[in-house]
Amino acid sequence: MSSPPANVELQTLSFVELTALLEQIFVRHGTSPEVAAVLANNCASAERDGSHSHGIFRIRGYLSSLAAGWVDGQVVPKVEDVGAAFVRVDAGGGFAQPALEVAKALLIAKARSAGIAILAIRNSHHFAALWPDVEPFAEQGLVALSVVNSMTCVVPHDAQQPLFGTNPIAFAAPRAGGQPIVFDMATSAIAHGDVQIAAREGRLLPEGMGVDRAGEPTCDPKAILDGGALLPFGGYKGSALSMMVELLAAALTGGNFSFEFDWSKHPGAQTPWTGQLIIVIDPDKGRGQDFAARSEELVRQMHGVGQTRMPGDRRYAQRAKSLVSGIGLPRFDLDHLRQLAGV
Amino acid sequence: MSSPPANVELQTLSFVELTALLEQIFVRHGTSPEVAAVLANNCASAERDGSHSHGIFRIRGYLSSLAAGWVDGQVVPKVEDVGAAFVRVDAGGGFAQPALEVAKALLIAKARSAGIAILAIRNSHHFAALWPDVEPFAEQGLVALSVVNSMTCVVPHDAQQPLFGTNPIAFAAPRAGGQPIVFDMATSAIAHGDVQIAAREGRLLPEGMGVDRAGEPTCDPKAILDGGALLPFGGYKGSALSMMVELLAAALTGGNFSFEFDWSKHPGAQTPWTGQLIIVIDPDKGRGQDFAARSEELVRQMHGVGQTRMPGDRRYAQRAKSLVSGIGLPRFDLDHLRQLAGV
Repeated sequence: MSSPPANVELQTLSFVELTALLEQIFVRHGTSPEVAAVLANNCASAERDGSHSHGIFRIRGYLSSLAAGWVDGQVVPKVEDVGAAFVRVDAGGGFAQPALEVAKALLIAKARSAGIAILAIRNSHHFAALWPDVEPFAEQGLVALSVVNSMTCVVPHDAQQPLFGTNPIAFAAPRAGGQPIVFDMATSAIAHGDVQIAAREGRLLPEGMGVDRAGEPTCDPKAILDGGALLPFGGYKGSALSMMVELLAAALTGGNFSFEFDWSKHPGAQTPWTGQLIIVIDPDKGRGQDFAARSEELVRQMHGVGQTRMPGDRRYAQRAKSLVSGIGLPRFDLDHLRQLAGV
Repeated sequence: MSSPPANVELQTLSFVELTALLEQIFVRHGTSPEVAAVLANNCASAERDGSHSHGIFRIRGYLSSLAAGWVDGQVVPKVEDVGAAFVRVDAGGGFAQPALEVAKALLIAKARSAGIAILAIRNSHHFAALWPDVEPFAEQGLVALSVVNSMTCVVPHDAQQPLFGTNPIAFAAPRAGGQPIVFDMATSAIAHGDVQIAAREGRLLPEGMGVDRAGEPTCDPKAILDGGALLPFGGYKGSALSMMVELLAAALTGGNFSFEFDWSKHPGAQTPWTGQLIIVIDPDKGRGQDFAARSEELVRQMHGVGQTRMPGDRRYAQRAKSLVSGIGLPRFDLDHLRQLAGV
């Protein structure tokens, strides 16, 4: 995550205004109104919460992927009910978020009835942050875990060439005394979007994030993007987790591995065509204790040993600020968005 | 993991012989024959596979915990069937592995029928490696994920004092062309057993593993064990995963958090009294493709980019060796085991 440079003039608009503007853009560039509504809400949420690498920064990639015919913005996802606790969705080459949206009610009903349920999305493009996919479950008292694979850009531990995607893992759990505990972590040492932002802003990266085209360690984001690759976080452990994400998000769902799709015939394509897995658990089926009270106790103890910020806190703080003051966008960006929307 | 010093005289015995010897030890020190059989198989498996930090090295801790009256070696776990995909077990203050054993058939039946199933074990002591809990599911074509919390010894990222346990995550998936892909990783930078082994052997640890009593970084395993603490792996990401393990293994199951139990009135107690969560997925409910063939393809590609060793490979190699040549134990250790068994 990064913030706009401090010396840029910002214009503010409300969450509703930004969402409406983004909806217009998506529809104007080839998505159905249903898909536009889901993507606009997702993208505006990221911008509102300070997740700039997954906010309006992504619009260019969405539109170029649509223009390239790489992703289908109109397709209606097909939900398959295959077990008391198993739902599949064929996203039909469309985006993953609308696929989740159409299956969500069934997934929640199954989780509440069976105690746990799984949603396997395949044939889908995920180009957004993962936390917006899990946070809503925790707001309904459920525990959620999701993984999605992306496109080859991470060198497995002890390997020589990239294979895995940035393959994030997101988790959300309800909490009695506050907003849900939510994390969303790339299993790469850094998220791909943050490398792109650093390159755009001309900043160097910390050590250990990636390698250049020759496989040598580098702190230059441009060298990573220009034929280089990322490293997993935490050495062999992060690498094993990234492998697990490939197995769960692709092998299990029937989606592509991060290295299996070929977008070379679709210039401008940027959205990874893979799969996504979501597991939802109803903690009321656990011991019968109040899970949210227990998670609140854990938070209290974490604060007690000196951890000042919980996962998700930075987003919630920025969200509260955006609610009061609006979402600030550089004038240049806002003008560009309006141009794209044709307004 | 570590190996016995090279210059120590080793005596070999078969897996069956070692298991039988360990069973005698457990029964002689207060467990039921059923519990003894499960623990002996687990412990001998670890020794056989070269997981020395969870092999016979653990016997002392098992026995002192039993002698202290801290863990109940006789109790029969109570299985609670609470949903189409949810099983709970009250381990009754006994060990976690026998609790898993009595619930396993029901868990597998639910996973095959519903597509996914969850086992929440509470009121349990887990003192072993976690991979033996998940590997058998993969041998039956299922995907398994397990987490267990332990005892306060890890400082959360950006905190000042320890709170979390080493809180491992284990994962297993079937594979067409070979033995299952299995990993078992502490979310601490190093496993507690490996710190104990290093201390016993007088070896220093790599940097970044832990802090001393004053909270200062140290490479001395004795300083970590003497009032110091471990660090999470991979900074804030490993720390978030460790937090997730507390939530899943304790809050969700009804078990204790790693910081909640007080064994001060049970001198010799070493087994953490917490909870464990296991999630089992039937990949046949996925796209309908052969999951094991897909995971084999991932392994092939990982080898293709230069990753020579898959998670679990070192254990399998040592297992094969042990099968041929027997399990080598230092004569001193074997004599001690025989003494404990009264033979």
